[in-house]
Amino acid sequence: MSTVSTRMDKRTLQQNARRVLEPLVALLASLRVAPLLVSLFGVAFSLWGAVMVARGALLAGGVFLLIAGLCDVLDGDLARRSGRASAFGAFIDSTLDRVGEFLYFGGILLYVMRRPNGYDLWEPVVVLVALMGSVLTSYARARAEGLGVACKVGIMERPERIALLVIGLFAGHRFLMAVMILLAASSLFTVVQRVRHVHRSAEDAPR
Amino acid sequence: MSTVSTRMDKRTLQQNARRVLEPLVALLASLRVAPLLVSLFGVAFSLWGAVMVARGALLAGGVFLLIAGLCDVLDGDLARRSGRASAFGAFIDSTLDRVGEFLYFGGILLYVMRRPNGYDLWEPVVVLVALMGSVLTSYARARAEGLGVACKVGIMERPERIALLVIGLFAGHRFLMAVMILLAASSLFTVVQRVRHVHRSAEDAPR
Repeated sequence: MSTVSTRMDKRTLQQNARRVLEPLVALLASLRVAPLLVSLFGVAFSLWGAVMVARGALLAGGVFLLIAGLCDVLDGDLARRSGRASAFGAFIDSTLDRVGEFLYFGGILLYVMRRPNGYDLWEPVVVLVALMGSVLTSYARARAEGLGVACKVGIMERPERIALLVIGLFAGHRFLMAVMILLAASSLFTVVQRVRHVHRSAEDAPR
Repeated sequence: MSTVSTRMDKRTLQQNARRVLEPLVALLASLRVAPLLVSLFGVAFSLWGAVMVARGALLAGGVFLLIAGLCDVLDGDLARRSGRASAFGAFIDSTLDRVGEFLYFGGILLYVMRRPNGYDLWEPVVVLVALMGSVLTSYARARAEGLGVACKVGIMERPERIALLVIGLFAGHRFLMAVMILLAASSLFTVVQRVRHVHRSAEDAPR
């Protein structure tokens, strides 16, 4: 019951967020901007932001990540609106999303390990686990779908992960490390949820 | 033409390697060892090896990675031989393979950034790109298959990546960095090959 209502809330929230962006999507569509171009801009912003984060400019990095996240919502909506949605579009969009994740967590990792005051070993380890958990969440779903099992279950998907990351970057080092711990734990939990889901759904299917 | 012959050679090599392992697979099958247990042992060896690599014991780390790679071949063969091959088995096997990759590259990253004599910034960046390229190679294939496009193209798959990594770990720091550059470049090239393949195969398919 509570899962259903949470999911409904989430969907309503996403729909409202989309409505805010509608005029921008309409503008881009009328300018005939290709969705892939928007995705590539998102990756560029992620790269730029990751470099800033690696240099210790967390706040500026957070702003760039927010813009990258915006591009990420825009590209899909734009593709749908301009009738360009395609299997290849979905494929390249997902793949570039993963690139963005590697860039961001990579930036945070370099930031942590290059702090002038040094670092504790658990800090880079937690960042690596958070990166692994985030990418595996998406990998598990894609692999399951490749085997014919729908797999959109789990508490932590990409919008939630980006929101948490932005909050962490805005709030400074200690809070960022807390977010990393939260992301590491919750994304691994999501991976386990997906593994259990595939286990239940596909137990006796032939390889 | 040359691609076909390389692929044939690769397959013959793999078949011969499999034949060497056959008695071991038969033994495990007769002991009713579950393929998943072998996979989990592989992850445990990867974790152990990664910790060794992070501490600078490259040679020992290479030995553990070799054992982990062996587990990786054994689990699939064992599943097929004992008639336990299943969609879930394929799913969990692939997912644990990615875990192993994160562990190993993570270990190398920590090793590079914790060397007593310091490091150049390009070194951890190249390790991160090699990790990204390796995981994206598998992600791209899984995502494409989820969209209904077969995608087993590309020059660098997991056996090649493991062989290169082991050689790099055995040969010491400088050679390991050369392997990282090679892995980063070749795996990104493979990702581009797969993106182009999906583009050709799925251009006009509906989302």
